[in-house]
Amino acid sequence: MSRYFSGRFQTLTPYTPGEQPQERRYIKLNTNESPFPPSPGVMAAVQEEAKRLQLYSDPECRALRNALAEFYDLAPEQFLAGNGSDELLNFAFMAFCDEDCPALFPDITYGFYPVYAGVNRVPFREIPLEEDLRFSLEKLESLHGTVFLANPNAPTGLAKGREEIERLLRSRPDSVLVVDEAYVDFGAESVLPLVSRYDNLLVIQTFSKSRSMAGARLGFAAGSEDLIADLNTLKYSTNPYNVNRMTAAAGVAALREDAYYRANARTIMENRCFTAEALRKLGFTVTDSKANFLFACCSRIGGGELYRKLKERGILVRHFTLPRIDDYVRITIGTREEMEALLEETAAILEEQS
Amino acid sequence: MSRYFSGRFQTLTPYTPGEQPQERRYIKLNTNESPFPPSPGVMAAVQEEAKRLQLYSDPECRALRNALAEFYDLAPEQFLAGNGSDELLNFAFMAFCDEDCPALFPDITYGFYPVYAGVNRVPFREIPLEEDLRFSLEKLESLHGTVFLANPNAPTGLAKGREEIERLLRSRPDSVLVVDEAYVDFGAESVLPLVSRYDNLLVIQTFSKSRSMAGARLGFAAGSEDLIADLNTLKYSTNPYNVNRMTAAAGVAALREDAYYRANARTIMENRCFTAEALRKLGFTVTDSKANFLFACCSRIGGGELYRKLKERGILVRHFTLPRIDDYVRITIGTREEMEALLEETAAILEEQS
Repeated sequence: MSRYFSGRFQTLTPYTPGEQPQERRYIKLNTNESPFPPSPGVMAAVQEEAKRLQLYSDPECRALRNALAEFYDLAPEQFLAGNGSDELLNFAFMAFCDEDCPALFPDITYGFYPVYAGVNRVPFREIPLEEDLRFSLEKLESLHGTVFLANPNAPTGLAKGREEIERLLRSRPDSVLVVDEAYVDFGAESVLPLVSRYDNLLVIQTFSKSRSMAGARLGFAAGSEDLIADLNTLKYSTNPYNVNRMTAAAGVAALREDAYYRANARTIMENRCFTAEALRKLGFTVTDSKANFLFACCSRIGGGELYRKLKERGILVRHFTLPRIDDYVRITIGTREEMEALLEETAAILEEQS
Repeated sequence: MSRYFSGRFQTLTPYTPGEQPQERRYIKLNTNESPFPPSPGVMAAVQEEAKRLQLYSDPECRALRNALAEFYDLAPEQFLAGNGSDELLNFAFMAFCDEDCPALFPDITYGFYPVYAGVNRVPFREIPLEEDLRFSLEKLESLHGTVFLANPNAPTGLAKGREEIERLLRSRPDSVLVVDEAYVDFGAESVLPLVSRYDNLLVIQTFSKSRSMAGARLGFAAGSEDLIADLNTLKYSTNPYNVNRMTAAAGVAALREDAYYRANARTIMENRCFTAEALRKLGFTVTDSKANFLFACCSRIGGGELYRKLKERGILVRHFTLPRIDDYVRITIGTREEMEALLEETAAILEEQS
């Protein structure tokens, strides 16, 4: 830290992204990336845009917002594209939380939420998950503040149904509910179709997971025109050209080739089912994940130890040294071969333990 | 605005980017883009990275920071890459300004500075330029706060020499000086080599202008390791994967092909000289710009009128409806052919006036 750093941020603890090792080749099951490359149209669109990099991208992202509007049957004004969904989540914390309106989220969820609250200097309250890691939305009904709900939740993978979320929206009409649907395409129910009906609903999605574009950085927010206008005020006050040309064009192409991505998502769901079953046979407790990862623990080995031993064997998973989930590891679902390698090494590690 | 928008931002006036018309083809001299496409290596690097978009980019941007370190003969820890220099300027306002440390900048400069101050809720003070649009740095010496100095300045194009900036650095050792060198490669003197000597100097540059990458969104900050660490705290608290894979790889390739970009910058400087001379012959007052644009006014026509008439004729320039510079237009330097078209249409418009 320099002696010039504002006192506002001196005690801020930044987010720690999952490892992105550059030195060695791992089977990388730690950051919930897709094992499938982008579709041919995405690569072609990127190549085409690379010829025009000297020109700014469209700050309004019209082509992409039109494509999103058509895809989701909403108006272009109901969408905002972002440099990954992380940027949009930050805007949502800025726009809809302050001294008088705290952020509310589960105590076990995307670890970035408390950091967004910190950097924006807004109070937050963590609502404990139940013993079985489920989240009871009723707990929120009487609380004042803006709710951030990852659905499916991370790292548990557990999902809420649309009806239950709709009940929450109706019970708190004077508060915004931000639903972070980063993992929704792997078997959960999206509330995106509800944004025209509830002016207090903001849905944030990403192209990073089911659309194989983590490295392109593209997310979007969907909501009422007014909520989107609020986020635009912040975008145009921090970074108007936030989405680059190549990524915007890749996004349009990905929407056009949806069948490819849906087939990939189905494969990942099949691999998830296969892996969960195999882990249970090895003695693991595995949550009922609707995401492209599993959250699992085993009484025979601690989460940290399993993480380290898998890493030694060339497989990266993610471990969170946090109360209540310290025993768990989060395992991204990759190809069938990758999952077989994981299971084989895990079995060998457990074998060593005994 | 929604009824949920935080009171913090309800009176914020966002930045207005230059027009990016999608409907009609203009000779586009309004947003200081390069008229030259990216170099072949940049396009090849982008195409290669497009195959791996399913994987996150390296949040540490190691390859790019190593390339910058080699290029500028500094350490990789002295660099931070950003999603355009706009993102980094915002981080600098966050990190080095607050209630107790106002932002200081000229009254005529990059129009985004007051917006950054607004969105971060820090006080700012605008220091008037002299009558001839020059900026006297002595005015800053006795003032408390973090200085933001665009060098060359926008939209005037006027540049300060390294010695004068060094004097300012020495006179205010307890305050940060942020030098925004977006346009430095067109004939001005960079203070980047000074960052190891002055721990209160932060230099921000962009690949948007001289490196033909406005549409890729890439900027970087250079400073002491401590200043860069402060900015990293903010990056990891808002958007750790802020630079996408394609853009990071394009940046590395652009640094490798520096000769191409330097030749382009020379051409632009030649075209600037030719255009300034011709405008003066038409009766314009033209500032001594060291940037890839000219700032010019003519007693025979207002800036707004000239802007509109040029637009009707298919040429976009930029006009700022601001006190003191309302008579001016800012003209990006393009190819020789583009400048000839501009001069021809301008002459015809003046002809009509008389």
